Amino acid sequence: MTAFIYRRTFTIEWGHCDPAGIVFNSRFFEFFDWNTWMLFESALGVAKTEMTAAFNIVGVPLVGAKASFKRPAKFNDTVELVSHVSEFRRSSFDVKHQLYNGGELAVDGQESRVWAAMVPGDPPQLKTAPIPAEVIARFNAP
Amino acid sequence: MTAFIYRRTFTIEWGHCDPAGIVFNSRFFEFFDWNTWMLFESALGVAKTEMTAAFNIVGVPLVGAKASFKRPAKFNDTVELVSHVSEFRRSSFDVKHQLYNGGELAVDGQESRVWAAMVPGDPPQLKTAPIPAEVIARFNAP
Amino acid sequence: MTAFIYRRTFTIEWGHCDPAGIVFNSRFFEFFDWNTWMLFESALGVAKTEMTAAFNIVGVPLVGAKASFKRPAKFNDTVELVSHVSEFRRSSFDVKHQLYNGGELAVDGQESRVWAAMVPGDPPQLKTAPIPAEVIARFNAP
Amino acid sequence: MTAFIYRRTFTIEWGHCDPAGIVFNSRFFEFFDWNTWMLFESALGVAKTEMTAAFNIVGVPLVGAKASFKRPAKFNDTVELVSHVSEFRRSSFDVKHQLYNGGELAVDGQESRVWAAMVPGDPPQLKTAPIPAEVIARFNAP
Repeated sequence: MTAFIYRRTFTIEWGHCDPAGIVFNSRFFEFFDWNTWMLFESALGVAKTEMTAAFNIVGVPLVGAKASFKRPAKFNDTVELVSHVSEFRRSSFDVKHQLYNGGELAVDGQESRVWAAMVPGDPPQLKTAPIPAEVIARFNAP
Repeated sequence: MTAFIYRRTFTIEWGHCDPAGIVFNSRFFEFFDWNTWMLFESALGVAKTEMTAAFNIVGVPLVGAKASFKRPAKFNDTVELVSHVSEFRRSSFDVKHQLYNGGELAVDGQESRVWAAMVPGDPPQLKTAPIPAEVIARFNAP
Repeated sequence: MTAFIYRRTFTIEWGHCDPAGIVFNSRFFEFFDWNTWMLFESALGVAKTEMTAAFNIVGVPLVGAKASFKRPAKFNDTVELVSHVSEFRRSSFDVKHQLYNGGELAVDGQESRVWAAMVPGDPPQLKTAPIPAEVIARFNAP
Repeated sequence: MTAFIYRRTFTIEWGHCDPAGIVFNSRFFEFFDWNTWMLFESALGVAKTEMTAAFNIVGVPLVGAKASFKRPAKFNDTVELVSHVSEFRRSSFDVKHQLYNGGELAVDGQESRVWAAMVPGDPPQLKTAPIPAEVIARFNAP
Protein backbone atom coordinates (compact mmCIF):
# COMPACT_ATOMS: atom_id res chain seq x y z
CA MET A 1 0.00 0.00 0.00
CA THR A 2 1.27 3.41 -1.00
CA ALA A 3 1.19 6.39 1.31
CA PHE A 4 -0.61 8.74 -1.04
CA ILE A 5 -4.37 8.90 -0.55
CA TYR A 6 -6.94 10.95 -2.44
CA ARG A 7 -10.23 11.76 -0.70
CA ARG A 8 -13.26 13.32 -2.38
CA THR A 9 -16.53 14.23 -0.68
CA PHE A 10 -19.60 14.66 -2.86
CA THR A 11 -23.36 14.33 -2.81
CA ILE A 12 -25.46 11.62 -4.42
CA GLU A 13 -27.59 13.15 -7.18
CA TRP A 14 -31.14 12.27 -8.22
CA GLY A 15 -29.86 11.15 -11.61
CA HIS A 16 -27.42 8.70 -9.97
CA CYS A 17 -30.31 6.73 -8.44
CA ASP A 18 -32.61 4.04 -9.77
CA PRO A 19 -36.25 3.18 -9.06
CA ALA A 20 -35.20 1.50 -5.79
CA GLY A 21 -34.04 4.98 -4.72
CA ILE A 22 -30.38 3.95 -4.44
CA VAL A 23 -27.32 4.61 -6.57
CA PHE A 24 -27.38 2.48 -9.73
CA ASN A 25 -24.25 0.30 -9.69
CA SER A 26 -22.66 1.63 -12.90
CA ARG A 27 -22.37 5.08 -11.30
CA PHE A 28 -19.87 3.79 -8.75
CA PHE A 29 -17.54 2.84 -11.59
CA GLU A 30 -17.85 6.41 -12.92
CA PHE A 31 -16.93 7.65 -9.44
CA PHE A 32 -13.92 5.31 -9.32
CA ASP A 33 -12.56 6.40 -12.71
CA TRP A 34 -12.69 10.05 -11.75
CA ASN A 35 -10.99 9.43 -8.42
CA THR A 36 -8.14 7.62 -10.18
CA TRP A 37 -7.58 10.66 -12.40
CA MET A 38 -7.64 12.93 -9.33
CA LEU A 39 -5.32 10.60 -7.39
CA PHE A 40 -2.73 10.58 -10.18
CA GLU A 41 -2.91 14.32 -10.71
CA SER A 42 -2.47 14.90 -6.98
CA ALA A 43 0.36 12.42 -6.51
CA LEU A 44 2.31 13.30 -9.66
CA GLY A 45 1.68 17.05 -9.74
CA VAL A 46 0.91 16.83 -13.45
CA ALA A 47 -2.38 17.99 -15.01
CA LYS A 48 -4.60 15.13 -16.21
CA THR A 49 -4.36 16.33 -19.80
CA GLU A 50 -0.54 16.47 -19.61
CA MET A 51 0.00 13.01 -18.21
CA THR A 52 0.41 11.16 -21.49
CA ALA A 53 3.02 13.64 -22.73
CA ALA A 54 4.83 13.91 -19.37
CA PHE A 55 5.38 10.16 -19.12
CA ASN A 56 5.43 9.22 -22.81
CA ILE A 57 2.46 6.90 -22.42
CA VAL A 58 -0.91 6.59 -24.14
CA GLY A 59 -2.63 6.28 -20.79
CA VAL A 60 -3.36 3.83 -18.00
CA PRO A 61 -6.07 1.63 -19.54
CA LEU A 62 -8.40 -0.26 -17.25
CA VAL A 63 -8.05 -4.05 -17.44
CA GLY A 64 -10.25 -4.95 -14.47
CA ALA A 65 -12.76 -3.42 -12.10
CA LYS A 66 -14.77 -4.78 -9.22
CA ALA A 67 -16.91 -3.65 -6.33
CA SER A 68 -18.68 -5.08 -3.30
CA PHE A 69 -21.85 -3.24 -2.39
CA LYS A 70 -22.18 -3.38 1.38
CA ARG A 71 -24.61 -0.59 2.20
CA PRO A 72 -26.75 1.55 -0.07
CA ALA A 73 -26.16 5.20 -0.91
CA LYS A 74 -29.31 7.25 -1.48
CA PHE A 75 -30.32 10.54 -3.04
CA ASN A 76 -28.70 13.49 -1.25
CA ASP A 77 -26.39 11.35 0.89
CA THR A 78 -22.99 12.95 1.38
CA VAL A 79 -20.37 10.32 0.67
CA GLU A 80 -16.59 10.22 0.79
CA LEU A 81 -14.58 8.26 -1.78
CA VAL A 82 -11.10 7.36 -0.53
CA SER A 83 -8.63 6.06 -3.13
CA HIS A 84 -5.03 4.90 -3.16
CA VAL A 85 -2.75 2.62 -5.15
CA SER A 86 -2.81 -0.66 -3.25
CA GLU A 87 -0.09 -2.32 -5.35
CA PHE A 88 2.39 -1.38 -8.03
CA ARG A 89 3.68 -4.21 -10.20
CA ARG A 90 6.22 -3.95 -13.07
CA SER A 91 3.80 -2.49 -15.61
CA SER A 92 0.43 -2.65 -13.88
CA PHE A 93 -1.13 -1.47 -10.64
CA ASP A 94 -4.28 -1.65 -8.55
CA VAL A 95 -6.27 1.29 -7.23
CA LYS A 96 -8.44 0.64 -4.19
CA HIS A 97 -11.60 2.75 -3.91
CA GLN A 98 -13.60 2.83 -0.69
CA LEU A 99 -16.83 4.78 -0.53
CA TYR A 100 -18.02 5.78 2.92
CA ASN A 101 -21.56 6.86 3.68
CA GLY A 102 -22.20 8.31 7.12
CA GLY A 103 -18.84 6.98 8.25
CA GLU A 104 -19.64 3.36 7.24
CA LEU A 105 -18.00 1.54 4.35
CA ALA A 106 -20.70 1.35 1.67
CA VAL A 107 -18.75 0.23 -1.41
CA ASP A 108 -15.39 -1.52 -1.52
CA GLY A 109 -13.96 -1.28 -5.02
CA GLN A 110 -10.84 -1.85 -7.02
CA GLU A 111 -9.52 -1.03 -10.46
CA SER A 112 -6.59 -2.73 -12.18
CA ARG A 113 -4.76 -0.69 -14.78
CA VAL A 114 -1.71 -0.97 -17.00
CA TRP A 115 0.99 1.53 -17.89
CA ALA A 116 0.67 1.61 -21.67
CA ALA A 117 2.98 3.01 -24.33
CA MET A 118 2.73 3.11 -28.10
CA VAL A 119 5.32 1.11 -30.00
CA PRO A 120 6.17 2.59 -33.42
CA GLY A 121 5.40 0.37 -36.38
CA ASP A 122 2.90 -0.07 -39.15
CA PRO A 123 0.43 0.07 -37.56
CA PRO A 124 1.71 1.32 -34.20
CA GLN A 125 0.96 -1.07 -31.36
CA LEU A 126 -0.15 -0.48 -27.80
CA LYS A 127 1.93 -2.33 -25.24
CA THR A 128 2.54 -2.26 -21.53
CA ALA A 129 5.69 -0.57 -20.31
CA PRO A 130 7.56 -0.59 -16.99
CA ILE A 131 6.23 1.97 -14.52
CA PRO A 132 9.05 4.47 -13.89
CA ALA A 133 10.58 4.37 -10.42
CA GLU A 134 10.02 8.12 -10.13
CA VAL A 135 6.27 7.61 -10.53
CA ILE A 136 6.13 4.96 -7.84
CA ALA A 137 8.27 7.13 -5.58
CA ARG A 138 5.73 9.97 -5.79
CA PHE A 139 3.02 7.67 -4.44
CA ASN A 140 5.22 6.64 -1.55
CA ALA A 141 6.18 10.16 -0.57
CA PRO A 142 4.69 11.20 2.76
CA MET B 1 -40.15 17.45 -43.95
CA THR B 2 -38.17 14.77 -45.67
CA ALA B 3 -39.63 11.43 -46.69
CA PHE B 4 -37.07 9.26 -44.97
CA ILE B 5 -38.06 8.04 -41.52
CA TYR B 6 -36.13 5.86 -39.09
CA ARG B 7 -38.09 3.91 -36.48
CA ARG B 8 -36.59 2.01 -33.56
CA THR B 9 -38.48 -0.01 -30.97
CA PHE B 10 -36.77 -0.73 -27.67
CA THR B 11 -37.48 -1.37 -24.01
CA ILE B 12 -36.97 0.98 -21.11
CA GLU B 13 -34.28 -0.41 -18.83
CA TRP B 14 -34.05 -0.28 -15.01
CA GLY B 15 -30.89 1.83 -15.30
CA HIS B 16 -32.71 4.40 -17.47
CA CYS B 17 -35.11 5.24 -14.62
CA ASP B 18 -34.85 7.50 -11.59
CA PRO B 19 -36.33 7.24 -8.07
CA ALA B 20 -39.70 8.40 -9.42
CA GLY B 21 -39.68 5.19 -11.48
CA ILE B 22 -39.62 7.02 -14.82
CA VAL B 23 -36.96 7.61 -17.43
CA PHE B 24 -34.49 10.27 -16.26
CA ASN B 25 -34.58 13.09 -18.81
CA SER B 26 -30.94 12.90 -19.95
CA ARG B 27 -31.54 9.39 -21.27
CA PHE B 28 -33.92 10.70 -23.93
CA PHE B 29 -31.08 12.77 -25.36
CA GLU B 30 -28.97 9.60 -25.53
CA PHE B 31 -31.84 7.94 -27.38
CA PHE B 32 -32.07 10.88 -29.82
CA ASP B 33 -28.35 10.88 -30.63
CA TRP B 34 -28.37 7.19 -31.46
CA ASN B 35 -31.44 7.53 -33.66
CA THR B 36 -29.78 10.32 -35.64
CA TRP B 37 -26.81 8.04 -36.34
CA MET B 38 -29.19 5.25 -37.38
CA LEU B 39 -31.26 7.63 -39.52
CA PHE B 40 -28.20 8.87 -41.41
CA GLU B 41 -26.77 5.40 -41.91
CA SER B 42 -30.13 4.19 -43.22
CA ALA B 43 -30.77 7.14 -45.51
CA LEU B 44 -27.24 7.45 -46.91
CA GLY B 45 -26.33 3.78 -47.07
CA VAL B 46 -22.95 4.55 -45.51
CA ALA B 47 -21.69 2.97 -42.27
CA LYS B 48 -21.58 5.36 -39.31
CA THR B 49 -17.83 5.01 -39.03
CA GLU B 50 -17.38 5.79 -42.76
CA MET B 51 -19.49 8.93 -42.84
CA THR B 52 -16.76 11.45 -42.17
CA ALA B 53 -14.56 10.01 -44.92
CA ALA B 54 -17.41 9.53 -47.39
CA PHE B 55 -18.51 13.17 -47.19
CA ASN B 56 -15.22 14.82 -46.26
CA ILE B 57 -16.62 16.18 -43.03
CA VAL B 58 -15.59 16.00 -39.41
CA GLY B 59 -19.14 15.19 -38.39
CA VAL B 60 -22.54 16.72 -37.78
CA PRO B 61 -22.03 18.44 -34.40
CA LEU B 62 -25.04 19.18 -32.27
CA VAL B 63 -25.77 22.88 -31.78
CA GLY B 64 -29.17 22.57 -30.11
CA ALA B 65 -31.43 19.99 -28.51
CA LYS B 66 -34.83 20.17 -26.91
CA ALA B 67 -37.66 17.97 -25.71
CA SER B 68 -41.18 18.26 -24.37
CA PHE B 69 -42.07 15.54 -21.91
CA LYS B 70 -45.76 14.78 -22.35
CA ARG B 71 -46.20 11.38 -20.77
CA PRO B 72 -43.83 9.30 -18.70
CA ALA B 73 -42.05 6.16 -19.84
CA LYS B 74 -41.47 3.56 -17.14
CA PHE B 75 -39.31 0.51 -16.54
CA ASN B 76 -40.02 -2.24 -19.07
CA ASP B 77 -42.26 -0.09 -21.28
CA THR B 78 -41.79 -0.86 -24.95
CA VAL B 79 -41.36 2.43 -26.78
CA GLU B 80 -40.92 3.46 -30.40
CA LEU B 81 -38.64 6.35 -31.36
CA VAL B 82 -39.52 7.81 -34.78
CA SER B 83 -36.99 10.20 -36.31
CA HIS B 84 -36.71 12.21 -39.51
CA VAL B 85 -35.02 15.35 -40.81
CA SER B 86 -37.66 18.05 -40.47
CA GLU B 87 -35.66 20.73 -42.27
CA PHE B 88 -32.48 21.02 -44.27
CA ARG B 89 -30.91 24.48 -44.47
CA ARG B 90 -27.71 25.46 -46.34
CA SER B 91 -25.29 24.01 -43.81
CA SER B 92 -27.51 22.95 -40.93
CA PHE B 93 -30.54 20.76 -40.34
CA ASP B 94 -33.07 19.71 -37.73
CA VAL B 95 -33.92 16.17 -36.73
CA LYS B 96 -37.30 15.59 -35.14
CA HIS B 97 -37.54 12.74 -32.63
CA GLN B 98 -40.89 11.50 -31.41
CA LEU B 99 -41.06 8.82 -28.76
CA TYR B 100 -44.28 6.84 -28.56
CA ASN B 101 -45.30 4.79 -25.55
CA GLY B 102 -48.33 2.56 -25.96
CA GLY B 103 -49.21 4.42 -29.13
CA GLU B 104 -49.28 7.83 -27.40
CA LEU B 105 -46.72 10.56 -28.00
CA ALA B 106 -44.64 10.63 -24.81
CA VAL B 107 -41.67 12.82 -25.80
CA ASP B 108 -41.47 15.33 -28.62
CA GLY B 109 -37.85 16.19 -29.29
CA GLN B 110 -35.60 17.93 -31.75
CA GLU B 111 -31.91 18.21 -32.46
CA SER B 112 -30.24 20.91 -34.55
CA ARG B 113 -26.96 19.96 -36.16
CA VAL B 114 -24.44 21.46 -38.56
CA TRP B 115 -22.54 19.96 -41.48
CA ALA B 116 -18.96 20.59 -40.40
CA ALA B 117 -15.71 20.40 -42.34
CA MET B 118 -12.10 21.01 -41.33
CA VAL B 119 -10.41 23.93 -42.99
CA PRO B 120 -6.64 23.45 -43.41
CA GLY B 121 -4.48 25.98 -41.59
CA ASP B 122 -2.33 26.30 -38.54
CA PRO B 123 -4.18 25.26 -36.52
CA PRO B 124 -6.90 23.69 -38.70
CA GLN B 125 -10.32 25.18 -38.08
CA LEU B 126 -13.75 23.63 -37.89
CA LYS B 127 -16.34 25.37 -40.02
CA THR B 128 -19.78 24.69 -41.41
CA ALA B 129 -20.03 23.64 -45.04
CA PRO B 130 -22.92 23.43 -47.50
CA ILE B 131 -24.84 20.16 -47.27
CA PRO B 132 -24.36 18.36 -50.61
CA ALA B 133 -27.48 18.12 -52.79
CA GLU B 134 -26.90 14.37 -53.09
CA VAL B 135 -27.21 14.01 -49.31
CA ILE B 136 -30.48 15.91 -49.18
CA ALA B 137 -31.77 13.92 -52.16
CA ARG B 138 -31.25 10.65 -50.29
CA PHE B 139 -33.54 11.86 -47.51
CA ASN B 140 -36.22 12.79 -49.99
CA ALA B 141 -36.15 9.49 -51.83
CA PRO B 142 -39.31 7.47 -51.32
CA MET C 1 -36.10 36.99 -13.47
CA THR C 2 -35.73 36.16 -9.82
CA ALA C 3 -32.91 37.47 -7.70
CA PHE C 4 -31.75 34.14 -6.37
CA ILE C 5 -28.88 32.54 -8.30
CA TYR C 6 -27.13 29.25 -7.69
CA ARG C 7 -23.56 28.86 -9.01
CA ARG C 8 -21.62 25.60 -9.10
CA THR C 9 -18.05 25.16 -10.32
CA PHE C 10 -16.94 21.67 -11.30
CA THR C 11 -14.53 19.84 -13.57
CA ILE C 12 -15.37 17.94 -16.74
CA GLU C 13 -14.64 14.25 -16.23
CA TRP C 14 -13.25 11.72 -18.71
CA GLY C 15 -16.51 9.76 -18.52
CA HIS C 16 -18.53 12.86 -19.48
CA CYS C 17 -16.79 13.02 -22.87
CA ASP C 18 -17.36 11.25 -26.17
CA PRO C 19 -14.96 10.13 -28.92
CA ALA C 20 -14.79 13.73 -30.20
CA GLY C 21 -13.21 14.56 -26.83
CA ILE C 22 -16.05 16.87 -25.77
CA VAL C 23 -18.90 16.53 -23.30
CA PHE C 24 -21.64 14.28 -24.69
CA ASN C 25 -24.84 16.33 -24.83
CA SER C 26 -26.93 14.24 -22.44
CA ARG C 27 -24.51 15.03 -19.63
CA PHE C 28 -25.49 18.71 -19.71
CA PHE C 29 -29.06 17.73 -18.88
CA GLU C 30 -27.72 15.77 -15.88
CA PHE C 31 -25.83 18.91 -14.84
CA PHE C 32 -29.01 21.00 -15.19
CA ASP C 33 -31.15 18.67 -13.11
CA TRP C 34 -28.68 18.70 -10.25
CA ASN C 35 -28.37 22.49 -10.32
CA THR C 36 -32.16 22.83 -10.06
CA TRP C 37 -32.13 20.68 -6.91
CA MET C 38 -29.28 22.77 -5.49
CA LEU C 39 -31.02 26.02 -6.46
CA PHE C 40 -34.24 25.04 -4.72
CA GLU C 41 -32.49 23.79 -1.62
CA SER C 42 -30.48 27.00 -1.41
CA ALA C 43 -33.41 29.34 -2.04
CA LEU C 44 -35.93 27.56 0.17
CA GLY C 45 -33.64 26.46 2.96
CA VAL C 46 -35.21 22.99 2.89
CA ALA C 47 -33.23 19.78 2.31
CA LYS C 48 -33.87 18.16 -1.08
CA THR C 49 -35.29 15.08 0.54
CA GLU C 50 -37.69 17.17 2.68
CA MET C 51 -39.10 19.27 -0.13
CA THR C 52 -42.09 17.12 -1.00
CA ALA C 53 -43.21 16.95 2.63
CA ALA C 54 -42.50 20.62 3.35
CA PHE C 55 -44.68 21.82 0.47
CA ASN C 56 -47.14 18.96 0.22
CA ILE C 57 -46.13 18.20 -3.35
CA VAL C 58 -44.95 15.10 -5.17
CA GLY C 59 -42.19 17.08 -6.81
CA VAL C 60 -41.46 19.50 -9.62
CA PRO C 61 -41.60 17.24 -12.69
CA LEU C 62 -39.80 18.30 -15.83
CA VAL C 63 -42.08 19.05 -18.78
CA GLY C 64 -39.49 20.57 -21.11
CA ALA C 65 -35.75 20.96 -21.49
CA LYS C 66 -33.57 22.59 -24.09
CA ALA C 67 -30.02 23.69 -24.70
CA SER C 68 -27.94 25.59 -27.23
CA PHE C 69 -24.40 24.36 -27.51
CA LYS C 70 -22.22 27.37 -28.33
CA ARG C 71 -18.72 26.25 -27.40
CA PRO C 72 -17.40 22.83 -26.45
CA ALA C 73 -16.34 21.76 -22.98
CA LYS C 74 -13.49 19.25 -22.86
CA PHE C 75 -11.94 16.81 -20.44
CA ASN C 76 -10.56 18.57 -17.35
CA ASP C 77 -12.08 21.96 -18.19
CA THR C 78 -13.26 23.80 -15.12
CA VAL C 79 -16.76 25.07 -15.81
CA GLU C 80 -19.30 27.14 -13.90
CA LEU C 81 -23.02 26.40 -14.12
CA VAL C 82 -25.16 29.41 -13.17
CA SER C 83 -28.86 28.77 -12.60
CA HIS C 84 -31.89 30.82 -11.64
CA VAL C 85 -35.66 30.78 -12.06
CA SER C 86 -36.30 32.96 -15.09
CA GLU C 87 -40.09 32.92 -14.75
CA PHE C 88 -42.71 31.79 -12.28
CA ARG C 89 -46.20 31.19 -13.65
CA ARG C 90 -49.27 30.04 -11.69
CA SER C 91 -48.26 26.39 -11.41
CA SER C 92 -45.17 26.14 -13.58
CA PHE C 93 -41.77 27.79 -13.87
CA ASP C 94 -38.64 27.96 -15.98
CA VAL C 95 -35.09 27.48 -14.77
CA LYS C 96 -32.35 29.01 -16.87
CA HIS C 97 -28.99 27.22 -16.84
CA GLN C 98 -25.89 28.87 -18.27
CA LEU C 99 -22.63 26.96 -18.40
CA TYR C 100 -19.48 29.03 -18.66
CA ASN C 101 -16.14 27.63 -19.77
CA GLY C 102 -13.13 29.90 -19.37
CA GLY C 103 -15.47 32.85 -18.85
CA GLU C 104 -17.34 32.28 -22.14
CA LEU C 105 -20.92 31.06 -22.38
CA ALA C 106 -20.62 27.46 -23.63
CA VAL C 107 -24.15 26.12 -23.11
CA ASP C 108 -27.36 28.09 -22.74
CA GLY C 109 -30.07 25.85 -21.31
CA GLN C 110 -33.53 25.90 -19.85
CA GLU C 111 -35.82 23.54 -18.00
CA SER C 112 -39.58 23.95 -17.61
CA ARG C 113 -41.12 22.33 -14.58
CA VAL C 114 -44.50 22.10 -12.89
CA TRP C 115 -45.51 22.27 -9.23
CA ALA C 116 -47.27 18.93 -8.83
CA ALA C 117 -49.51 17.63 -6.07
CA MET C 118 -51.30 14.32 -5.60
CA VAL C 119 -55.07 14.48 -5.64
CA PRO C 120 -56.71 11.78 -3.48
CA GLY C 121 -58.93 9.36 -5.34
CA ASP C 122 -58.93 5.83 -6.64
CA PRO C 123 -56.40 5.84 -8.09
CA PRO C 124 -54.79 9.05 -6.82
CA GLN C 125 -54.00 11.50 -9.60
CA LEU C 126 -51.07 13.79 -10.19
CA LYS C 127 -52.04 17.36 -10.96
CA THR C 128 -50.44 20.76 -11.09
CA ALA C 129 -51.04 23.09 -8.15
CA PRO C 130 -50.52 26.82 -7.63
CA ILE C 131 -47.01 27.69 -6.54
CA PRO C 132 -47.27 29.19 -3.03
CA ALA C 133 -46.49 32.90 -2.79
CA GLU C 134 -44.02 32.13 0.03
CA VAL C 135 -42.00 29.95 -2.36
CA ILE C 136 -41.83 32.64 -5.00
CA ALA C 137 -40.93 35.22 -2.36
CA ARG C 138 -37.89 33.20 -1.31
CA PHE C 139 -36.53 33.35 -4.86
CA ASN C 140 -36.98 37.11 -4.95
CA ALA C 141 -35.26 37.74 -1.66
CA PRO C 142 -31.97 39.57 -2.09
CA MET D 1 -23.58 -23.76 -14.30
CA THR D 2 -27.22 -23.65 -15.24
CA ALA D 3 -28.49 -24.64 -18.65
CA PHE D 4 -30.41 -21.46 -19.36
CA ILE D 5 -28.51 -18.86 -21.38
CA TYR D 6 -29.65 -15.42 -22.50
CA ARG D 7 -27.95 -13.88 -25.55
CA ARG D 8 -28.37 -10.29 -26.72
CA THR D 9 -26.78 -8.72 -29.77
CA PHE D 10 -26.55 -4.94 -29.91
CA THR D 11 -24.46 -2.13 -31.34
CA ILE D 12 -22.04 0.11 -29.47
CA GLU D 13 -23.34 3.68 -29.52
CA TRP D 14 -21.40 6.94 -29.81
CA GLY D 15 -22.59 7.93 -26.33
CA HIS D 16 -21.19 4.69 -24.85
CA CYS D 17 -17.64 5.68 -25.83
CA ASP D 18 -15.03 7.90 -24.23
CA PRO D 19 -12.30 10.12 -25.70
CA ALA D 20 -10.15 7.04 -26.35
CA GLY D 21 -12.92 5.94 -28.73
CA ILE D 22 -13.79 2.84 -26.73
CA VAL D 23 -16.67 1.92 -24.45
CA PHE D 24 -16.33 3.66 -21.07
CA ASN D 25 -16.19 0.94 -18.41
CA SER D 26 -19.32 1.91 -16.47
CA ARG D 27 -21.44 1.16 -19.55
CA PHE D 28 -20.57 -2.54 -19.36
CA PHE D 29 -22.17 -2.66 -15.92
CA GLU D 30 -25.32 -1.12 -17.42
CA PHE D 31 -25.24 -3.81 -20.09
CA PHE D 32 -24.85 -6.52 -17.42
CA ASP D 33 -27.78 -5.28 -15.31
CA TRP D 34 -30.12 -5.29 -18.30
CA ASN D 35 -29.05 -8.78 -19.36
CA THR D 36 -29.78 -10.11 -15.86
CA TRP D 37 -33.33 -8.72 -16.09
CA MET D 38 -33.72 -10.28 -19.54
CA LEU D 39 -32.25 -13.61 -18.37
CA PHE D 40 -34.67 -13.84 -15.44
CA GLU D 41 -37.67 -12.86 -17.51
CA SER D 42 -36.76 -15.45 -20.13
CA ALA D 43 -36.02 -18.25 -17.70
CA LEU D 44 -38.97 -17.66 -15.37
CA GLY D 45 -41.57 -16.62 -17.92
CA VAL D 46 -42.61 -13.73 -15.69
CA ALA D 47 -42.55 -10.07 -16.78
CA LYS D 48 -39.79 -8.00 -15.13
CA THR D 49 -42.35 -5.77 -13.45
CA GLU D 50 -44.23 -8.80 -12.04
CA MET D 51 -41.26 -10.57 -10.56
CA THR D 52 -41.42 -9.07 -7.08
CA ALA D 53 -45.11 -9.96 -6.74
CA ALA D 54 -44.76 -13.41 -8.32
CA PHE D 55 -42.04 -14.50 -5.91
CA ASN D 56 -42.91 -12.37 -2.89
CA ILE D 57 -39.53 -10.65 -2.94
CA VAL D 58 -38.40 -7.04 -3.05
CA GLY D 59 -35.90 -7.87 -5.76
CA VAL D 60 -32.49 -9.39 -6.37
CA PRO D 61 -30.14 -6.65 -5.11
CA LEU D 62 -26.61 -6.56 -6.40
CA VAL D 63 -23.96 -7.23 -3.77
CA GLY D 64 -20.94 -7.53 -6.06
CA ALA D 65 -19.89 -6.87 -9.65
CA LYS D 66 -16.66 -7.32 -11.53
CA ALA D 67 -15.26 -7.35 -15.03
CA SER D 68 -12.04 -8.10 -16.86
CA PHE D 69 -11.54 -5.98 -19.95
CA LYS D 70 -9.67 -8.12 -22.47
CA ARG D 71 -10.28 -6.37 -25.77
CA PRO D 72 -11.85 -3.02 -26.53
CA ALA D 73 -15.28 -2.43 -28.04
CA LYS D 74 -15.58 0.61 -30.27
CA PHE D 75 -18.28 2.82 -31.75
CA ASN D 76 -20.56 0.85 -34.08
CA ASP D 77 -19.13 -2.55 -33.17
CA THR D 78 -21.79 -5.24 -33.05
CA VAL D 79 -21.36 -7.17 -29.83
CA GLU D 80 -23.05 -10.16 -28.25
CA LEU D 81 -23.60 -10.35 -24.49
CA VAL D 82 -24.08 -13.92 -23.27
CA SER D 83 -25.37 -14.36 -19.71
CA HIS D 84 -26.24 -17.27 -17.45
CA VAL D 85 -26.43 -18.09 -13.74
CA SER D 86 -23.10 -19.67 -12.95
CA GLU D 87 -24.01 -20.68 -9.40
CA PHE D 88 -27.06 -20.76 -7.18
CA ARG D 89 -26.44 -20.76 -3.44
CA ARG D 90 -29.07 -20.89 -0.65
CA SER D 91 -30.10 -17.23 -0.93
CA SER D 92 -27.62 -15.77 -3.38
CA PHE D 93 -26.41 -16.43 -6.89
CA ASP D 94 -23.84 -15.35 -9.49
CA VAL D 95 -24.58 -14.27 -13.04
CA LYS D 96 -21.76 -14.59 -15.53
CA HIS D 97 -21.73 -12.05 -18.39
CA GLN D 98 -19.46 -12.54 -21.38
CA LEU D 99 -19.32 -9.89 -24.08
CA TYR D 100 -18.06 -11.00 -27.46
CA ASN D 101 -16.84 -8.61 -30.14
CA GLY D 102 -16.18 -10.10 -33.56
CA GLY D 103 -16.32 -13.55 -32.05
CA GLU D 104 -13.59 -12.81 -29.47
CA LEU D 105 -14.22 -12.49 -25.73
CA ALA D 106 -13.88 -8.77 -25.00
CA VAL D 107 -15.28 -8.50 -21.45
CA ASP D 108 -15.62 -11.23 -18.87
CA GLY D 109 -17.96 -10.10 -16.14
CA GLN D 110 -19.89 -11.33 -13.14
CA GLU D 111 -22.60 -10.06 -10.85
CA SER D 112 -23.44 -11.47 -7.41
CA ARG D 113 -26.99 -10.96 -6.23
CA VAL D 114 -29.19 -11.94 -3.31
CA TRP D 115 -32.79 -13.11 -3.15
CA ALA D 116 -34.29 -10.48 -0.85
CA ALA D 117 -37.61 -10.40 0.97
CA MET D 118 -39.18 -7.83 3.27
CA VAL D 119 -39.71 -8.93 6.84
CA PRO D 120 -42.70 -7.25 8.52
CA GLY D 121 -41.89 -5.09 11.52
CA ASP D 122 -41.54 -1.49 12.54
CA PRO D 123 -39.77 -0.56 10.36
CA PRO D 124 -39.92 -3.50 7.93
CA GLN D 125 -36.50 -5.02 7.27
CA LEU D 126 -34.91 -6.31 4.11
CA LYS D 127 -33.38 -9.75 4.47
CA THR D 128 -32.17 -12.52 2.26
CA ALA D 129 -34.48 -15.49 1.73
CA PRO D 130 -33.96 -18.99 0.36
CA ILE D 131 -34.24 -19.17 -3.40
CA PRO D 132 -37.25 -21.38 -4.20
CA ALA D 133 -36.45 -24.75 -5.76
CA GLU D 134 -38.93 -23.98 -8.55
CA VAL D 135 -36.89 -20.93 -9.54
CA ILE D 136 -33.65 -22.86 -9.70
CA ALA D 137 -35.40 -25.63 -11.64
CA ARG D 138 -36.42 -23.15 -14.35
CA PHE D 139 -32.78 -22.24 -14.95
CA ASN D 140 -31.83 -25.89 -15.24
CA ALA D 141 -34.58 -26.77 -17.69
CA PRO D 142 -33.24 -27.61 -21.13
